Amino acid sequence: MSAHSHEIEEGLSFQPRFDASGLVTCVATDVATGDVLMVAHMNDEALRKTIATGEAWYFSRSRNALWRKGETSGQTQRVVEMRTDCDQDAVWIRVEQIGAACHTGRRSCFYRKVEAEDGGAKLVFVDADRLFDPDAVYKK
Amino acid sequence: MSAHSHEIEEGLSFQPRFDASGLVTCVATDVATGDVLMVAHMNDEALRKTIATGEAWYFSRSRNALWRKGETSGQTQRVVEMRTDCDQDAVWIRVEQIGAACHTGRRSCFYRKVEAEDGGAKLVFVDADRLFDPDAVYKK
Repeated sequence: MSAHSHEIEEGLSFQPRFDASGLVTCVATDVATGDVLMVAHMNDEALRKTIATGEAWYFSRSRNALWRKGETSGQTQRVVEMRTDCDQDAVWIRVEQIGAACHTGRRSCFYRKVEAEDGGAKLVFVDADRLFDPDAVYKK
Repeated sequence: MSAHSHEIEEGLSFQPRFDASGLVTCVATDVATGDVLMVAHMNDEALRKTIATGEAWYFSRSRNALWRKGETSGQTQRVVEMRTDCDQDAVWIRVEQIGAACHTGRRSCFYRKVEAEDGGAKLVFVDADRLFDPDAVYKK
């Protein structure tokens, strides 16, 4: 292993390895249940703001914009703990989620199971109750 | 919302939205504790094999190769449940992890906390015991 790889994996310096778009992957889990709420991305500024404020900030690839989670919907995330992984290209945040994490109004974005069927796969809804009406919240 | 977006978010058809490299993000959590074990990627073949066999397969970006988790280390993952997210560009698998998920020998790849310090951040080791010796397992 190179000295650089060793420093990334075993060091105490936070050196996020941003991809070609300047992003790391962020997994947010519910601190109470361990459920994965969402998978999103952070750029350097989103990471800094999240660490400094204790609230989750992300970078939207579709809108190409920094975004404070809940700034429109009110469904904010308070970060209880942030971790990074061995190669520092992902972070895991355990959060207290106000209301719903998903823009569809569900608690988690992962509201469908993938099940094997006839050599392929189908989806089955689970935990799919909406906690808010997205059309009302996002004024579509 | 377009009819296509509605089908992706509300439909029962599994239509993974692969990125430009043909990959979706996969988050693996420990079914017993809810801890995030690793964040990795799956291509179409890895997804199919995971669904068909109930064992986790990934696609390694660094090695550009399909990879059955544990094929070298023996540290396999049995998939208890797979879910996909609202826009179907990520999957979450809850797994029974044999031994350690991380190539460094730790149970989880997320063995360091990110803590705010002097306007920046530092890392602190947590849950960092090694369950195997990577030099012995990977014959480096």
